[in-house]
Amino acid sequence: MSTAVAPVKIAILGCGTVGTQVVRLLTEQRDDLSARVGAPVDIAGIYVRDTSVPRDDVVPVDLLTSDAETLVDAADVVVEVMGGDEPARTLILRALAAGTGVVTANKALLATRGAELYEAADEAGADLYFEAAVAGAIPLVRPVRESLAGDHVTRILGIVNGTTNYVLDEMTTKGLDYADVVAEAQRLGYAEADPTADVGGHDAAAKAAILASLAFHQRVHLDDVYCEGITEVSADDIAAAKETDRVIKLLAIAERAEDGVSVRVHPTLLPSSHPLAGVRGAFNAVFVEAEAAGELMFYGQGAGGAPTASAVLGDVVSVARHVAGGGRGPRESNYARHDVLPMDAAQTRYAVRMSVQDRPGVLSAVAQMFANHGVGIESVRQMAGKGHAGLILSSHRASEAALAATVEDLRASDSVNDVWSVLRIEGE
Amino acid sequence: MSTAVAPVKIAILGCGTVGTQVVRLLTEQRDDLSARVGAPVDIAGIYVRDTSVPRDDVVPVDLLTSDAETLVDAADVVVEVMGGDEPARTLILRALAAGTGVVTANKALLATRGAELYEAADEAGADLYFEAAVAGAIPLVRPVRESLAGDHVTRILGIVNGTTNYVLDEMTTKGLDYADVVAEAQRLGYAEADPTADVGGHDAAAKAAILASLAFHQRVHLDDVYCEGITEVSADDIAAAKETDRVIKLLAIAERAEDGVSVRVHPTLLPSSHPLAGVRGAFNAVFVEAEAAGELMFYGQGAGGAPTASAVLGDVVSVARHVAGGGRGPRESNYARHDVLPMDAAQTRYAVRMSVQDRPGVLSAVAQMFANHGVGIESVRQMAGKGHAGLILSSHRASEAALAATVEDLRASDSVNDVWSVLRIEGE
Repeated sequence: MSTAVAPVKIAILGCGTVGTQVVRLLTEQRDDLSARVGAPVDIAGIYVRDTSVPRDDVVPVDLLTSDAETLVDAADVVVEVMGGDEPARTLILRALAAGTGVVTANKALLATRGAELYEAADEAGADLYFEAAVAGAIPLVRPVRESLAGDHVTRILGIVNGTTNYVLDEMTTKGLDYADVVAEAQRLGYAEADPTADVGGHDAAAKAAILASLAFHQRVHLDDVYCEGITEVSADDIAAAKETDRVIKLLAIAERAEDGVSVRVHPTLLPSSHPLAGVRGAFNAVFVEAEAAGELMFYGQGAGGAPTASAVLGDVVSVARHVAGGGRGPRESNYARHDVLPMDAAQTRYAVRMSVQDRPGVLSAVAQMFANHGVGIESVRQMAGKGHAGLILSSHRASEAALAATVEDLRASDSVNDVWSVLRIEGE
Repeated sequence: MSTAVAPVKIAILGCGTVGTQVVRLLTEQRDDLSARVGAPVDIAGIYVRDTSVPRDDVVPVDLLTSDAETLVDAADVVVEVMGGDEPARTLILRALAAGTGVVTANKALLATRGAELYEAADEAGADLYFEAAVAGAIPLVRPVRESLAGDHVTRILGIVNGTTNYVLDEMTTKGLDYADVVAEAQRLGYAEADPTADVGGHDAAAKAAILASLAFHQRVHLDDVYCEGITEVSADDIAAAKETDRVIKLLAIAERAEDGVSVRVHPTLLPSSHPLAGVRGAFNAVFVEAEAAGELMFYGQGAGGAPTASAVLGDVVSVARHVAGGGRGPRESNYARHDVLPMDAAQTRYAVRMSVQDRPGVLSAVAQMFANHGVGIESVRQMAGKGHAGLILSSHRASEAALAATVEDLRASDSVNDVWSVLRIEGE
């Protein structure tokens, strides 16, 4: 990376859970980010109300400032992760008016003041990116606004609040009552001390307004969104849903009707076979129906410091690229030069299914052959066999070469009648 | 849309299943596309080897030409949906050399000639987009290359071939043998007469090379990808997998190892609880693990004319925006002015759970109250109750207003003891 290129200066407004992770990623991954942007990426400063409050070690205290205006005016890209209405709104408008690109994770502000912010951005020809405001780490803005730009979205069904999905999931899998699960969720830190914004559906409603605006190319205000939470959902409701092979999810729904669009949040019965029905715990997922693309689903972590920061950083790279002059969309940035490993060097786990002699000492002989090549055995399962013993051995991570040598020994051994199959294991 | 703005001229190379759908969408949605691009979007011509071959009605015959060079040279955006190596490669290079943006769905070409094409695009500062080449309608290029640009992808596990997923799914759910399922898939048109490219894993390997290149910011050639198909997977393997609570999927895997990257395609055991395990039939899904974002999954249709055309059109809009001068990424295009409907006007289905008198005539009285407000009953389910009868009525689509009026009548009726809950139904 040539140091002759002027650095792109990033101002960070707010240093809470998300802000701290944004600072960490910008610091730890500075070289990669600079390579992707095409210019050095520097933190110009971090605005906090009180610079004397102790911070996480990853936050350079010398970058903290309580003078937001000066910081915003000096920045090439402004990252707003403070949340709330003011001063976030005024600072974002100040940046946009100066033509400075803004990245925000502030869903409440977008759902209520979106029109004002979008228009300010358009007027100044400044970037306004907000991937993190919709569903945390799950990419939705680019897919809906860009990838589907040649299609017509007809409906969006979204699980966009992790707390309520966790509560409903626990009620469903454990048959517990609403109140007990919420109390437990609060104890575990999955729910706020005052969970109203989540369980009342208000957080989901803000996201529904943003999703509907994206999907239908128009402004949808939070006040346009019908909102009903999960506080009235009973264990009986969930039991009755099960009887009809359905589950209850809190959905954010945006759909095109004949005479307009409908945007709403409410507890919803879904068939157990629906892709959204399988979304467990605090995960989020957004199901999109488009005329040509058909059914799409986007799944991931909708909240949390690091996941949200990941989405923020993706936007920072996009905006910084524009600042650095890469205006025509992302170039291929192939700065990485990792070797592509031969298959022998690949590491994974294996399930070896074989027929062995049905006599004492065979299992230890078989296990020894694995040990000889440094392949650890995670589990052994005996299977029904006629006159012989069927075995499934699941291994720990090992190289293809070690596994191949092991199988060669197994095939040569008189303890082993036949190696039926070797299958690789992922995702455990 | 001001007609003073110069139109963006689109050249389409190839008019097969995908090309025909691209032409249809460009024609049917011309106004919306023009609004999103900021300039009229016109088809300059459609290259086909033989213009005399009869075409689908949506293809304007006067736009057909067998002179590809002249068409490419006159275009602002070139859409390559002919597939194969030549003449696709030469025509794409010709366009890029002239600084003309290219959109291609040609995965085989990208997996083998990607380096040459990317470098030609970089040299000329021309756009090269290929969302449709990776997983059909599923947006992956933008999410991985842009949304995750501030993160580090550590592993990608992808179900990227619908034919093989359909075959394995049928073997799993119906306990059938490989050969029988493939024969049936060919009869139904889900598998080619010569299914080698699919069942041999070669189609998935090409996509794995493209995914790995995107995820790890470097070139990965098809020859670098270890490839093993599903032809050896037996009903016994699948039965044994079930015994250990796993399923077998053909996965395209790209992962960062300590000393390099590993890219491979092979049948893989996945825990039944893994999000990829639930991907049914011919659907595709790509599971992405990133350091900060955590686990993400992208699900949808990986093939087919219309879904693939949707991805192509999204890219066409991006490239056409650059041609029209919207260089700094997508502006908010809020040309739509649909009314946001009040909740009363929302249409959905309902499950009404209630306690009714346990005597003759009650069900017909209840049904009449639904009929009075034009709410059709889809199903009635009797539930265990003590001294009373519990009912769950599932309705057809109706308006919130009609349902509310129905519930009001139910509550006032002496046939009904109590309306326990009203829940809306989606996804059926």
